[in-house]
Amino acid sequence: MSSSSFGEFDLIARLRRGIPPDPRVPLGIGDDAAVLSAPAGGRWLVAADMLLEGRHFTADTPPRLIGRKAIAVNVSDIAAMAGKPVAAFVTVAHNRGRGPEFAEEIHRGLADLAREYDIVIAGGDTNVWDGPVVVSVTLLGETIAGRAVTRGGAKVGDRVFVTGPLGGSLASGRHLSFPPRVAEAVALHAAVDLHAMIDVSDGLLSDLGHVCEESGVGIVLVADGVPINDAARAATDGRSALEHALTDGEDFELAFCIDEADAARIRDARGSVLPAEMELFEVGEVTAGRGVTVVGADGRALEFSNGGWAHQW
Amino acid sequence: MSSSSFGEFDLIARLRRGIPPDPRVPLGIGDDAAVLSAPAGGRWLVAADMLLEGRHFTADTPPRLIGRKAIAVNVSDIAAMAGKPVAAFVTVAHNRGRGPEFAEEIHRGLADLAREYDIVIAGGDTNVWDGPVVVSVTLLGETIAGRAVTRGGAKVGDRVFVTGPLGGSLASGRHLSFPPRVAEAVALHAAVDLHAMIDVSDGLLSDLGHVCEESGVGIVLVADGVPINDAARAATDGRSALEHALTDGEDFELAFCIDEADAARIRDARGSVLPAEMELFEVGEVTAGRGVTVVGADGRALEFSNGGWAHQW
Repeated sequence: MSSSSFGEFDLIARLRRGIPPDPRVPLGIGDDAAVLSAPAGGRWLVAADMLLEGRHFTADTPPRLIGRKAIAVNVSDIAAMAGKPVAAFVTVAHNRGRGPEFAEEIHRGLADLAREYDIVIAGGDTNVWDGPVVVSVTLLGETIAGRAVTRGGAKVGDRVFVTGPLGGSLASGRHLSFPPRVAEAVALHAAVDLHAMIDVSDGLLSDLGHVCEESGVGIVLVADGVPINDAARAATDGRSALEHALTDGEDFELAFCIDEADAARIRDARGSVLPAEMELFEVGEVTAGRGVTVVGADGRALEFSNGGWAHQW
Repeated sequence: MSSSSFGEFDLIARLRRGIPPDPRVPLGIGDDAAVLSAPAGGRWLVAADMLLEGRHFTADTPPRLIGRKAIAVNVSDIAAMAGKPVAAFVTVAHNRGRGPEFAEEIHRGLADLAREYDIVIAGGDTNVWDGPVVVSVTLLGETIAGRAVTRGGAKVGDRVFVTGPLGGSLASGRHLSFPPRVAEAVALHAAVDLHAMIDVSDGLLSDLGHVCEESGVGIVLVADGVPINDAARAATDGRSALEHALTDGEDFELAFCIDEADAARIRDARGSVLPAEMELFEVGEVTAGRGVTVVGADGRALEFSNGGWAHQW
């Protein structure tokens, strides 16, 4: 097939053939809308994120990793609610100049991650234009036992944990290949009473700030407890490794709040409560204050210029 | 608030405040994912469409109508399954140069249509970049009595109808302000046994071609029966009004197939079976052939160069 005759319907038809039947999606790609069966627990979780060339990936990013990341960031959001992903809807603007093989690589990357996490690509919209590449995914997930863990349940005295080292994700390329923490969320949900959870996408300070706001609490982070990724230590921009770990974003680890009794069980009996290979770092405590404070070894608050990353005019 | 301090979180916070609580969405904007209750009928319908500047609207399109259209095209898809829309997830790339007021107008347009069709805007992702404006909507809808009407149920002998005149939608601007045919779909679903239905987005020939393909049938359209919009008659590009009506696309009327007994009930007793003000045009018949054929008054097949509109490399 020549590239000039490669159009939208060809691509959709090929995508459709590659997707096996799944009882969770009685009707998938190919009609005006998909039909989804009720999930376990009766309720759907829904997350939606858009990736833009030049912001969330670059012109040099391998297209397969663009597709992978486009679903993965949403899987991370579903994990942050302690849910499991089920069905993805993908809308894409492909760049005409890059040609159909580039577009297909994006779809292969979407399919890679979908297969890995048992997700059905159930619908979407494929466009070709002269503008930059845009991939938007809406992901539906099921709750575990009907309960979603929000940002709003942290309680004073709770201990705060994260599931992995932070910082340097964009610089190291890990933002393209991170494993969304679904298994970790499921294991945690079974082992402890998760009061609040969020995925670290904008930076730990910013994201825990959302937990503070929604829960009406403060959080004190202990600087020495914050796990720092090697990529953050390698930064040469004059900002400290700790600052990178706290503010870089795109880590896609989970941060969560549990009470002291559950925290003690995790500290004392990791292997029996949670999978032994699972990384967990205790980073701080929920307080009666407001907002996130970071304290050094001397107990004094540290100051950071950047509370995380937000799109600004 | 100065435009330079207007960022993503401000916009999300404002969007969130404007949305009243709704029992269908226990948790809306503001967490990692939304939580949706099971819909009436147990099954969700899900449609997703992306609108691109320069393709689905122009640089001159009033931003409020961009937002309106972005939801409306998806509402039309849900209507085409004989469903009712419930919850929308909106991912947007705003153009920095246009400024925050332009962005807010897009969101007002989204809210306009959502209010009009009783849709909850339940989540999404707001970005600002230097690229063209992109708005992607994933819309969840509920089935009526648990049954979705697909493209795949047309039977030989069925009669084919459309809900309004076709053609000239892009030229006349109707593609920005069309009313998605939800009430019509609901009324039809209650009054007759809808075998197959589709919304006319790519052009009647192209869209009925999908019905033929999915149903394994042919359709013969009677040229004189195709309702032609005034905007199609006004075209001065040398193509006939009929050709515009058959191939222009973006009409967002419904086309559906019902058996002859139901067709007779509609023809003979419109006011008692369906709302009297509802427009319906009988355009053709389902046959044992393959693909869509258009016949003139003399019974001979007409030829058209353009089978509808698809994105091409």
